[in-house]
Amino acid sequence: MNNARIERTVSEMKKLGLGQLMVTDSDSILYYTGIWNSPFERFWGLLIREDGKHVLFANKLFRLKPVDFEVKIFDDVDPLTEVVCPYLQPGPFGVDGNMASRFLIPFTEAVPGLKPVLAQSCVSDVRACKDEEEKENMRTASRINDETMEKVRDFIREGVTELEVGEFIKKCFSEAGAGGESFMPIVCFGANASDPHHHPTDAVLKEGDCILIDMGCKWNGYCSDMTRTFYWKKVSDEDRKIYGITLKANLLGEEAAKAGRTFKEVDLAARDHIASFGYGPNFTHRLGHGIGLADHEGDDVSQVNGHVIKKDMCFSIEPGIYLPGRTGVRIEDLVIATEDGCELLNHFSKELTVLGV
Amino acid sequence: MNNARIERTVSEMKKLGLGQLMVTDSDSILYYTGIWNSPFERFWGLLIREDGKHVLFANKLFRLKPVDFEVKIFDDVDPLTEVVCPYLQPGPFGVDGNMASRFLIPFTEAVPGLKPVLAQSCVSDVRACKDEEEKENMRTASRINDETMEKVRDFIREGVTELEVGEFIKKCFSEAGAGGESFMPIVCFGANASDPHHHPTDAVLKEGDCILIDMGCKWNGYCSDMTRTFYWKKVSDEDRKIYGITLKANLLGEEAAKAGRTFKEVDLAARDHIASFGYGPNFTHRLGHGIGLADHEGDDVSQVNGHVIKKDMCFSIEPGIYLPGRTGVRIEDLVIATEDGCELLNHFSKELTVLGV
Repeated sequence: MNNARIERTVSEMKKLGLGQLMVTDSDSILYYTGIWNSPFERFWGLLIREDGKHVLFANKLFRLKPVDFEVKIFDDVDPLTEVVCPYLQPGPFGVDGNMASRFLIPFTEAVPGLKPVLAQSCVSDVRACKDEEEKENMRTASRINDETMEKVRDFIREGVTELEVGEFIKKCFSEAGAGGESFMPIVCFGANASDPHHHPTDAVLKEGDCILIDMGCKWNGYCSDMTRTFYWKKVSDEDRKIYGITLKANLLGEEAAKAGRTFKEVDLAARDHIASFGYGPNFTHRLGHGIGLADHEGDDVSQVNGHVIKKDMCFSIEPGIYLPGRTGVRIEDLVIATEDGCELLNHFSKELTVLGV
Repeated sequence: MNNARIERTVSEMKKLGLGQLMVTDSDSILYYTGIWNSPFERFWGLLIREDGKHVLFANKLFRLKPVDFEVKIFDDVDPLTEVVCPYLQPGPFGVDGNMASRFLIPFTEAVPGLKPVLAQSCVSDVRACKDEEEKENMRTASRINDETMEKVRDFIREGVTELEVGEFIKKCFSEAGAGGESFMPIVCFGANASDPHHHPTDAVLKEGDCILIDMGCKWNGYCSDMTRTFYWKKVSDEDRKIYGITLKANLLGEEAAKAGRTFKEVDLAARDHIASFGYGPNFTHRLGHGIGLADHEGDDVSQVNGHVIKKDMCFSIEPGIYLPGRTGVRIEDLVIATEDGCELLNHFSKELTVLGV
């Protein structure tokens, strides 16, 4: 059990008047206990209690190694409420945002006076601020991502398909010793880049296409996430224009990112720039998202999030302009907020680059 | 929208006194609407209403194609309760078992008088009974699984590792045109087979090892799942003994599987046989699980599940005996219940087979 992280969480719980908090997200349980598990449909929960009597609930099929804190092992045939509910106290019952209704509703029905309170913030706000060990893992994951982007740039050639580039990315991550991808690589040629969540297809690269690559790997469980947009053989005036606007928005966002500012201010620093050129409706998503053990975690960098950025929070800055049926551009880096600005985790060039020439 | 499936669901809802049911599981939404989506942290829900005014809630980033029923599109910056809650009526609010507390708790707080009711059964009981199209997909997925097991048997050779066999399985599925694996293949040599959920390692096959292969692929979204256990070069008396007991338990389970019986009766038909030889404590899991669009769905075939099997339900029969640190065996088939027994979906031989001789 990582006591420092647990203590920070208990102090967040106290602010909400919570004496008990059930954490069910696998990444969060890893964060506190160092134990990774994919429970699928079964229950996997860490009950954090103000009195220090924390309990991890685990199905015996998970085959946990011995640990130095209380673990309640149960079987598929044990009624789950009888396993868990004796540990719950009537009154406010903090739960993380991940907890499934198939657990939450029966627990609530079985314990008279139990009142579920959504308390994801008690976990997210702690996970958001990375400690030194976590920062080193984030830096390494992003360094591998930078190095992989160089290899991908050199791999792109006449006749290549989006799927082939996607497979090449996975191979590079694997060869670099990364723990897999943090998400399925997004590779878009030309008009496919106008869908921010496009999945690679057998589309073949054509002259004049943009090449949007959004990818990330894991290092010791921690995620990287970066986007670059290249062009093949030539670049149209329109692409050149939206690239320049997006790059400036990326730089303005990173300039604004700093402990003490709100996420909203950072989003708007980039968004207002894009909007000033009339492309506001073409920047269809938030500027960024928190990242760490999960690719998307904690606070959104969005125009409706008034939360204040704290030192050591890690998040993405990823403005984009999408022109449906034509083209798209996105430029994304990860940053860690500091007292007087931010540490940039990605160093791959952001200059407009035409490949194949 | 598949009206037959929706109507069967509404009739289940009426039995529970529910006029509204929110479905949030991606497989279930695919089942009703034909639309697949991976929403990650965002909301993706289908509200099924007794009055026929069904609504699909989708973030605009999901980029749905036009459909002939109501879709409520929202944006990352829209407060979700304001999007969804106007569609909810005070009173009982059915939710599926998957619904995350980050949605359920705010909805409940925003609609006075809304009372969440766990209504997974309204979805599961409908999905459990496969229609003709689904049965054809299940048969094809299992046929590919049978054919792949033949290739895997022939691939196993001196010096091979569990990981290599796992990669080979994925390659076979891909070459057969399957839509990926239904779960990460389980490949265990020797003592590793004593963990029912073992992940492939770089362990090298040794003379006398058992070789336990548990694998499945997808076909049009539908899953297969089969386990066979082979032996390398020779088989010990103990392995031969537990293989025979497990095989008989598999056959007894399949003999018992029939519409009108309970899942518990089927489980016990196999379990009692294993227990009669003193291996009860070594059969550490349920006999099987429902399967369809998800690898694990619907009813468990377990000794505590008194539900009655209905015609066209599809589930696994997978007894096993695990001897910690020594060896393990599991023999698994999929079956579809009929009025007078069951249709077996797997036809790969279950005779004890020693490879490499």
